[in-house]
Amino acid sequence: MFYHSGKLQYEVKVDTPNPMFAKYLQQAIGGVEGEIRVAMQYFFQAMGARGDSKYRDLLMMTATEELSHIEFLGHAVALNLQDAPTSMQDEAAADPVVAAIMGGMNPRHVLSSGLSAMPVNANGVPFDMSHVYATGNLAADMMANAMAEGGGRVLASRLYNLTDDAGMKDMLSFLIARDTMHQQQWLAVIEELGGMEATLPVPNSTPESHEATEHSYYFLNTSLDEPTPEGRWTAGPSLDGRGTFTKKDKVEPLGQKPDLGKARPDSAAQKEQM
Amino acid sequence: MFYHSGKLQYEVKVDTPNPMFAKYLQQAIGGVEGEIRVAMQYFFQAMGARGDSKYRDLLMMTATEELSHIEFLGHAVALNLQDAPTSMQDEAAADPVVAAIMGGMNPRHVLSSGLSAMPVNANGVPFDMSHVYATGNLAADMMANAMAEGGGRVLASRLYNLTDDAGMKDMLSFLIARDTMHQQQWLAVIEELGGMEATLPVPNSTPESHEATEHSYYFLNTSLDEPTPEGRWTAGPSLDGRGTFTKKDKVEPLGQKPDLGKARPDSAAQKEQM
Amino acid sequence: MFYHSGKLQYEVKVDTPNPMFAKYLQQAIGGVEGEIRVAMQYFFQAMGARGDSKYRDLLMMTATEELSHIEFLGHAVALNLQDAPTSMQDEAAADPVVAAIMGGMNPRHVLSSGLSAMPVNANGVPFDMSHVYATGNLAADMMANAMAEGGGRVLASRLYNLTDDAGMKDMLSFLIARDTMHQQQWLAVIEELGGMEATLPVPNSTPESHEATEHSYYFLNTSLDEPTPEGRWTAGPSLDGRGTFTKKDKVEPLGQKPDLGKARPDSAAQKEQM
Amino acid sequence: MFYHSGKLQYEVKVDTPNPMFAKYLQQAIGGVEGEIRVAMQYFFQAMGARGDSKYRDLLMMTATEELSHIEFLGHAVALNLQDAPTSMQDEAAADPVVAAIMGGMNPRHVLSSGLSAMPVNANGVPFDMSHVYATGNLAADMMANAMAEGGGRVLASRLYNLTDDAGMKDMLSFLIARDTMHQQQWLAVIEELGGMEATLPVPNSTPESHEATEHSYYFLNTSLDEPTPEGRWTAGPSLDGRGTFTKKDKVEPLGQKPDLGKARPDSAAQKEQM
Amino acid sequence: MFYHSGKLQYEVKVDTPNPMFAKYLQQAIGGVEGEIRVAMQYFFQAMGARGDSKYRDLLMMTATEELSHIEFLGHAVALNLQDAPTSMQDEAAADPVVAAIMGGMNPRHVLSSGLSAMPVNANGVPFDMSHVYATGNLAADMMANAMAEGGGRVLASRLYNLTDDAGMKDMLSFLIARDTMHQQQWLAVIEELGGMEATLPVPNSTPESHEATEHSYYFLNTSLDEPTPEGRWTAGPSLDGRGTFTKKDKVEPLGQKPDLGKARPDSAAQKEQM
Amino acid sequence: MFYHSGKLQYEVKVDTPNPMFAKYLQQAIGGVEGEIRVAMQYFFQAMGARGDSKYRDLLMMTATEELSHIEFLGHAVALNLQDAPTSMQDEAAADPVVAAIMGGMNPRHVLSSGLSAMPVNANGVPFDMSHVYATGNLAADMMANAMAEGGGRVLASRLYNLTDDAGMKDMLSFLIARDTMHQQQWLAVIEELGGMEATLPVPNSTPESHEATEHSYYFLNTSLDEPTPEGRWTAGPSLDGRGTFTKKDKVEPLGQKPDLGKARPDSAAQKEQM
Repeated sequence: MFYHSGKLQYEVKVDTPNPMFAKYLQQAIGGVEGEIRVAMQYFFQAMGARGDSKYRDLLMMTATEELSHIEFLGHAVALNLQDAPTSMQDEAAADPVVAAIMGGMNPRHVLSSGLSAMPVNANGVPFDMSHVYATGNLAADMMANAMAEGGGRVLASRLYNLTDDAGMKDMLSFLIARDTMHQQQWLAVIEELGGMEATLPVPNSTPESHEATEHSYYFLNTSLDEPTPEGRWTAGPSLDGRGTFTKKDKVEPLGQKPDLGKARPDSAAQKEQM
Repeated sequence: MFYHSGKLQYEVKVDTPNPMFAKYLQQAIGGVEGEIRVAMQYFFQAMGARGDSKYRDLLMMTATEELSHIEFLGHAVALNLQDAPTSMQDEAAADPVVAAIMGGMNPRHVLSSGLSAMPVNANGVPFDMSHVYATGNLAADMMANAMAEGGGRVLASRLYNLTDDAGMKDMLSFLIARDTMHQQQWLAVIEELGGMEATLPVPNSTPESHEATEHSYYFLNTSLDEPTPEGRWTAGPSLDGRGTFTKKDKVEPLGQKPDLGKARPDSAAQKEQM
Repeated sequence: MFYHSGKLQYEVKVDTPNPMFAKYLQQAIGGVEGEIRVAMQYFFQAMGARGDSKYRDLLMMTATEELSHIEFLGHAVALNLQDAPTSMQDEAAADPVVAAIMGGMNPRHVLSSGLSAMPVNANGVPFDMSHVYATGNLAADMMANAMAEGGGRVLASRLYNLTDDAGMKDMLSFLIARDTMHQQQWLAVIEELGGMEATLPVPNSTPESHEATEHSYYFLNTSLDEPTPEGRWTAGPSLDGRGTFTKKDKVEPLGQKPDLGKARPDSAAQKEQM
Repeated sequence: MFYHSGKLQYEVKVDTPNPMFAKYLQQAIGGVEGEIRVAMQYFFQAMGARGDSKYRDLLMMTATEELSHIEFLGHAVALNLQDAPTSMQDEAAADPVVAAIMGGMNPRHVLSSGLSAMPVNANGVPFDMSHVYATGNLAADMMANAMAEGGGRVLASRLYNLTDDAGMKDMLSFLIARDTMHQQQWLAVIEELGGMEATLPVPNSTPESHEATEHSYYFLNTSLDEPTPEGRWTAGPSLDGRGTFTKKDKVEPLGQKPDLGKARPDSAAQKEQM
Repeated sequence: MFYHSGKLQYEVKVDTPNPMFAKYLQQAIGGVEGEIRVAMQYFFQAMGARGDSKYRDLLMMTATEELSHIEFLGHAVALNLQDAPTSMQDEAAADPVVAAIMGGMNPRHVLSSGLSAMPVNANGVPFDMSHVYATGNLAADMMANAMAEGGGRVLASRLYNLTDDAGMKDMLSFLIARDTMHQQQWLAVIEELGGMEATLPVPNSTPESHEATEHSYYFLNTSLDEPTPEGRWTAGPSLDGRGTFTKKDKVEPLGQKPDLGKARPDSAAQKEQM
Repeated sequence: MFYHSGKLQYEVKVDTPNPMFAKYLQQAIGGVEGEIRVAMQYFFQAMGARGDSKYRDLLMMTATEELSHIEFLGHAVALNLQDAPTSMQDEAAADPVVAAIMGGMNPRHVLSSGLSAMPVNANGVPFDMSHVYATGNLAADMMANAMAEGGGRVLASRLYNLTDDAGMKDMLSFLIARDTMHQQQWLAVIEELGGMEATLPVPNSTPESHEATEHSYYFLNTSLDEPTPEGRWTAGPSLDGRGTFTKKDKVEPLGQKPDLGKARPDSAAQKEQM
């Protein structure tokens, strides 16, 4: 069950409201790299967690923290919109910078939300929940989470570079820090489970008899004219400790030329197909 | 530039066509764990790859392989639909198993595609390209790829368990094998780049001055009544080698109670808000 | 800032797991009538609330409660999936009821989530955040909320009718009760603000000079052959107390026949249009 | 069956074409507050109306009117695009206002529609029909409609404030007026059905035995540090006349700590979860 | 401006209600081959029509007819749902055919719409307006329309084959007939404009100087092992009368190996890319 | 099976990088008129092709070519973003053209992709695979393809007009040329199959007994006040050679006034509907 405090997790100040930056900030709320995604992803993973219950707790606690991130980012968006132009009339015609703002801000920040945050990304596209990856496999989930936090920290770093507002830089430096922790904490779970060798291949419960292992450890060069890029993935023991990496240059197809024959008479194809 | 051979990468046989399994198989084509996703993800990552060009080649070669996976899976779907019922008339009323098939198959396999594969998932929801994660950051991309392949191998293993068709089991064992390779090859890139310590936190180019590092290494327990789950993430050196993991029990908020004041007169709020 | 307790807001028991009912229950999580929607809607409304801060608090407190509803519903879905068939092999072929379950359950409950809840509706369509209505206008928001809770209670009532599992009926009776409170609490806000007469038309801050008031109070019968349905909306004072309802039978158009003239030469229309 | 007149329901004039305003206007066509939504919502509600047929007629007549609103708004968008720049070449480089227009208009108004209206919102996101709320419950539908019209009038008021084009202001004043009528006519239906007391809780046909009524009338304060906001919703008779509003400060969870046990062996979880 | 008659364009009778067929029928309402699509496509094309106004009229008249098709199909769906099971309790457990229906019908026909039509396809996916193709180019639009009607008639034919309900067959035979007319009327516009030779290539207003005409008339065989499929497209005059079809076997790439160089220091890539 | 060459199909040069043009170019990658759509459409049509296998080959070869178009367009987008501003700080405040670029470019080209192409359209909306039309009917598919290429050539022509960059104009002239070939090659298939008379109505396999042919050849004027637009579609032999076009002015409805009666007691409608 959830509870709430009236205060924000972190202080939010905006020295110079900037409605265009408000649009950019939305990516951190409703983008695929944003906070709604991680909050919901950890929440649904927690609800589906089987096995040692400490992972369920870990996930739910961080899900709860991410909800607090949505909240202070939402406040930051609203503060950046505080003085946004709501008229195209006199100013915009006369002043090209105002015209640029009218064109460059999210129009729905005026039209739909009345100058506050929305659950959309920087293009105004609403977040959709298909991005909540929760597989029921602990290792797959941990990698999805580390990936999400890596993407989140890339985004926060780019937002930090975009602005010179001291308040915004301060808030973003907090986000960058928490993304540092979160990407490592999920990878630390994998380390605790024995590291890559014990974890891979995900899922590690698939019986080897279900796998055509002669195809499990070669890198396939599908290029007609480029040499195989050599590296850790073309030689040496595989990361799961079960095999040895090799490479195959442009192999021949192993399968047949597909043929579905004629169309069925009742299938509303053209007569010529039947 | 792309080229094509008329043969499939891998042989596809279906001993007993099963239109309900065709619906389930669609997840491996148009699901978020499926082949369209990885083909397009590696393709777009390749097109945006900066730095050492061997990673671009690596990505493009595997993107090309994944296109071939779509192709043989598409053939498998069509073969499973070969004898699907296209009438609710006599049989369905009389035979509950036929009724179950009519209800349990994807209706659009009859209505829209004429008994062949579609770029949709097992619910019939079309794949959308927001799932193509390509950040311009090599490490973030590699983690996204390892995650995608982990999810893909979980899916292929579940499909393997669902069917007892020998042809389908054979094809899926090939997919499981290639997913084994692919998830490891992307993690091998990270190993080649120096492993976790050199790679983390992603992005590793963010100056430390942009980060509130006092918040970078503690696990935050946001629960009111559960103890902190202890593990690799609450003690010891951080994975990036820059700090030490600690934990904080239910901390107080660091921020203010948010207040946006009154609504602007021209904002079409209610008068009582102004 | 958010906090969490390890216990559910309400007890969840499932006497007879039913994977098809799990699919139906998803509508209460990820449907437009579901709990993700109201949790996020109240959350974003709270973040954009201007004027008397008590409405912000009211919204945030109920947003927090709705997060707890997602949580216990998610547990209910997982419990209903506990014994779901994960193989089409022997049983399904032999037993039409098992075949019906395989066809009638959400395939992604097996394939994607590993037998737990997902943020999707009963068709498996992911929730998308465009359904979070938060306008910055308090009255519009309150109506959106009352509407959402009305729809939610309709849904919960239909789910109650569908099942005869005692545990599920008990949980749903709690949901029905909370939806009773929530739909009334939002309407109570409107009553406190002076009721319909003071509130309407939303927004009540639009100057009357912005409105062609000669068109504000007639019901327009656009039918060629049906009489105007008479009622409270065709006679008597308008609900905002500013006018009198009347009716107009099939009126003539007030506007012109539209004509855009010729296409511009550089617009890639056909030559014949230019 | 539908019919059409060649003339618009209302006169549309644009004195000074403004391609950026064309983008903003799209919200009134293809936004969730827009005319496609209400046209389709009333249409589908009408098709599903059971009980007294006058409500079906009422809905269908207004659905028909809303189709006419789409039509004149579509014409307004096209007229605003009449002189839009279709080249980034000389002008845009030299003139920052032209550059702002090229950046601020919807690029697809040039690229995709050839300078005319599209069924998209102000962000260019296509309208999707999940926003058509039609529940089969008359009261829930009426609230959904009043909500939609409230949102629509908020939007029209904001568009009115944005422009100083006399023709556009005239057209929008007509829209504001019709939204005044429409929001009231749907609430008038509720009044005719006996008002809130008879209508609530929606659905009013749910037997009281299906409801845990001990939870039906308290406001739940989920905040750890904020007092309960007092108001009409915390005291006095409930709006449905069946109970009395009360409040509960931060209550303890009523449910269990959830536990799903171990993962099934065939579920492709990690071995450690089994 | 639109008007409405209280009667349906065509009689709808359902002899034996079939809730599973109701799900299938939805494709004709909210599928990409369905009536909402064509109604809205012709409507938006009409609103953007430039040049001879008779095409605007033609489009608007047929748009209006398609709205009437939505209406009678919506009634057909509701009639098919008339006796749908709304309980999983006793019957479903005992009777496998009832179980198949519960699993095979659209659950939202019970949960969300209260046994009536929805603007969704046969998978329950809501129609989205991105499928409204309206380019401002008359020939492109006519082809889009002929394509839509071809797809529509394929769908109607498949639905006809699926059912043996006399009422449904009668209604579908009317739809098949109207789709016959509509696909031909749009192609007749092209014939009137001079046929393929005058119309192609679309747009016919593109100056030849904008086209690398040496690449305009060869079929490119990109296969490594299949011969060029010969036909009307590899020899003879091109359909636009401007060139001669030829073929090219597997040509070499004409472009460079792409290289984006190093990542910018401020772009949040990994250090190794810079 | 697919293969790849390291070189682009066509040379890509950008003389003056323009991040706003990068946004516009995205429509040719991820728009409904773009290359992902045609690549995937031809690919899925090929996988479902039944009947003469040469059409399967034809489709797959051109699908392969379209993948190469995605690739060089993606490179063009990245080159246009090469010098994009990634800071709103000093420059943007001082220079209105920079401000216009910051507002007018796709923010996710900075935030999400790190200055490279994305699978989205010019509004930043991700491509979704519902636009892949593949019906299993050869003629319907050919028309869908000709339509797609017509739309594609309209788009390429508009992009050509928008830019004055010599490199971009050269690349677009190649695209225009290939779209010329592709739209004609699909129509050439129809010609080879006997032309319109043999092909129409699609599907030509529907038995005439399934069609209410008395409704197959009249144009229906649904306007109350406009005369029937006369043309090839109102007189003369139908294009399928089976009938004669005629016209009908505003006909009376053929159907009943719909009536669904009362709501079922267990359907959660309002009591007044029962």
